[in-house]
Amino acid sequence: MTPRAPAPAAGPTAEDVAARAEALLREHRESIDRLDAILVYTLAERFKHTQSVGRLKAEHGLPPSDPSREARQIERLEWLAQEADLDPAFARNFLNFIISEVIRHHEKLQK
Amino acid sequence: MTPRAPAPAAGPTAEDVAARAEALLREHRESIDRLDAILVYTLAERFKHTQSVGRLKAEHGLPPSDPSREARQIERLEWLAQEADLDPAFARNFLNFIISEVIRHHEKLQK
Repeated sequence: MTPRAPAPAAGPTAEDVAARAEALLREHRESIDRLDAILVYTLAERFKHTQSVGRLKAEHGLPPSDPSREARQIERLEWLAQEADLDPAFARNFLNFIISEVIRHHEKLQK
Repeated sequence: MTPRAPAPAAGPTAEDVAARAEALLREHRESIDRLDAILVYTLAERFKHTQSVGRLKAEHGLPPSDPSREARQIERLEWLAQEADLDPAFARNFLNFIISEVIRHHEKLQK
């Protein structure tokens, strides 16, 4: 049998492209799942602190919401979001979401 | 001058209690600020991945939302939230918030 020269490299087939996209999609999703675990554990830690703050406020008759602290937090979060290249509108929505949950918890504690 | 015996230890005054509460409040808030930095940077990293997923989906004509993936994510997040002792209702709201933001981004990319 005469050895044949290898065929010239063909371009990727549609199947190759789809398989490559699927592998990339899987890798991104695995990263997302790992980051979600960080987010959940960090949020849990954050909530332990806000619960302690809520108890302190309830014990000392302080108001559950503190607008000047919240304004400073929002300003700082916007700066951090810019540093991290995170959409500032998303960061603001996220912080408002967190703060409203925290105030809800504090109000429950004061009842 | 006759040395006087030290006064018997008095209970904490109202000022002591308030100062102690203020110091504790400050410490909790410093922890919260550090955790918020982790959250913002982790969210930024997560968004880089969901943006790549969005681009992949747009390039390959895949639908922006994937209900079976999202159902698995929500189930996993609920389990993680339980592990982390985070209020499961809060975790669910949080994930829905994230997912709706991500779908909004994907839809923008497909337009």
